[in-house]
Amino acid sequence: MSTNLQVLLASRPAGAVTEDNFRLVESPMPVPAGGQLLVRNDWLSLDPYMRGRMSDAKSYAKSVDIGEVMVGGTAGEVIASHNAQFKPGDKVVGALGWQQFGLSDGTGLMKIDHPVAPLSAYLGVLGMPGITAWIGLLDIGQPKAGETVVVSAASGAVGSVVGQLAKLKGCRAVGIAGGAAKCRHVVEDLGFDACVDYKAGNLAADLKAAVPDGKNRGVDVYFDNVGGEVLDAVLPNMNAFSRIPLCGLISQYSATEAYGVKQFRSFLVNRIRLQGFICFDRLDLWPQAQRELSGWLADGKIKYRETVAQGLAGAPRAFIGLLKGENLGKQLVKLG
Amino acid sequence: MSTNLQVLLASRPAGAVTEDNFRLVESPMPVPAGGQLLVRNDWLSLDPYMRGRMSDAKSYAKSVDIGEVMVGGTAGEVIASHNAQFKPGDKVVGALGWQQFGLSDGTGLMKIDHPVAPLSAYLGVLGMPGITAWIGLLDIGQPKAGETVVVSAASGAVGSVVGQLAKLKGCRAVGIAGGAAKCRHVVEDLGFDACVDYKAGNLAADLKAAVPDGKNRGVDVYFDNVGGEVLDAVLPNMNAFSRIPLCGLISQYSATEAYGVKQFRSFLVNRIRLQGFICFDRLDLWPQAQRELSGWLADGKIKYRETVAQGLAGAPRAFIGLLKGENLGKQLVKLG
Repeated sequence: MSTNLQVLLASRPAGAVTEDNFRLVESPMPVPAGGQLLVRNDWLSLDPYMRGRMSDAKSYAKSVDIGEVMVGGTAGEVIASHNAQFKPGDKVVGALGWQQFGLSDGTGLMKIDHPVAPLSAYLGVLGMPGITAWIGLLDIGQPKAGETVVVSAASGAVGSVVGQLAKLKGCRAVGIAGGAAKCRHVVEDLGFDACVDYKAGNLAADLKAAVPDGKNRGVDVYFDNVGGEVLDAVLPNMNAFSRIPLCGLISQYSATEAYGVKQFRSFLVNRIRLQGFICFDRLDLWPQAQRELSGWLADGKIKYRETVAQGLAGAPRAFIGLLKGENLGKQLVKLG
Repeated sequence: MSTNLQVLLASRPAGAVTEDNFRLVESPMPVPAGGQLLVRNDWLSLDPYMRGRMSDAKSYAKSVDIGEVMVGGTAGEVIASHNAQFKPGDKVVGALGWQQFGLSDGTGLMKIDHPVAPLSAYLGVLGMPGITAWIGLLDIGQPKAGETVVVSAASGAVGSVVGQLAKLKGCRAVGIAGGAAKCRHVVEDLGFDACVDYKAGNLAADLKAAVPDGKNRGVDVYFDNVGGEVLDAVLPNMNAFSRIPLCGLISQYSATEAYGVKQFRSFLVNRIRLQGFICFDRLDLWPQAQRELSGWLADGKIKYRETVAQGLAGAPRAFIGLLKGENLGKQLVKLG
């Protein structure tokens, strides 16, 4: 192999992302210099945060420049190394972007020496999405046994872990997802107590029915991945002193006009604590989160699902599908 | 005196409060039974939260029923007592409502034995509003020296204390208030670093100018008393890891349609922590708050202003004025 297939950012989306926003190119195979290593990426992770990097609006991370390789988490194998910490054959997880091969000086690259699951799981339940769920729910949400945890985008890579962690902590877990098939998966396969289909047209009533009035009901933790109308439907059901870890605003990423949150009064009346967060703010918690998630996964207490696109050329379409909610569980691209 | 003048809730407001929502009545003078005491209320406190009690929408406290005496904080003197804890002549602060005389069994009544200020101050800077400022800013907002604290309704009973506490903690204090006179008072009399007049028509630009870009700028703590458009103007200026103690939503109390908060994205991008609160959630902090506020007041480090209406009959009009922002500092009614 003498070339490296890459996906570059070709243009910034105006509203919804289109395939035109990306460009597939063949570049020369990179050659590691002193201290560097070369990785063959076997898996590319697709995640909603990438939509933010395509935009030049101020955010917590730098935008991708036009003509740059798209950012993204990757898992693969070291094929050449001038770095004493890594040797050919090492399995590694990092953020080498939307490309078949990547150079690294080792920074931010994690070696997977004793895997408890296939390598792709380290991009999902054991990687950034799973750790995001752990930090948001357990550190920020602070659920207590008997409380009710609601999570949006419940069948996604983060939401699916949130609900299962809630169950492990003795909580009632209620998902919100788009479509009957996802809701069935969330309840039957992942073990949530209930799941509300926001596409069914009765979100407010269906949600109220899933968290009925009475002792220990209503919502104690709302793990929000989507914002917008779903957030407005959840807010009136929040209990006094409830918590909202704000992880994402998927419903807003492609909106040309921002949605106005109308039920803001609930924050005051119910003394809600809202905390926006990203998992990289708490790198100190990653080892504990990954250790606990690995243990639960090995014990069969956490399940996960993957949706896999084949080949780098299919990444743009798979990413657009992810933003529309077409995936179930973790969206991956199998490279090469 | 054989009668007790009282203001009752006559009807629930639809939108803005009107004088018709109240009824002034003469009732028989109450007579204390065993364990009870009778208080002559010299001062009635008027506060924005009372708007919520006039409504029957679910909130953190029970609504006032139609025909009931309006709730409210009072300060006055014990004139008869069958309670061993109190004797005639004692100065007391409590919540005996919109009336000239009130009965109490002593619950929730605080004796002022060694006043450091006139009795009315115990309804303002040394009472519920001052303690609300202390809890919201210091316990929830957690300002660090060098940070920028912004507070809305800055010339009011709560906001005026928030900004002065911020200065005492080594922060830059920026107020938001309605009108040039209030802004002048906030800067010249209370010592804030700047004050933005939201009625001047350039809120977003004026606010940005008051918290310019650069090191240690932007907003680290936004103490929000008003919500609505002012909140939307502040949100884009919040710094990473900033905090919003949410104390009130005055702009929304008389709105017939809820304002939609559009800049919600800032909560995620800047990892903002928002916490709705009321001062009664943290009764454990009251002694410390009152002790510190008393010390600062005695040392001349905190100033306060009062707007006083004369006579109970004027209370409804003064309350309507308060909701419109016609007061400067603490709004009181002098009774009898």
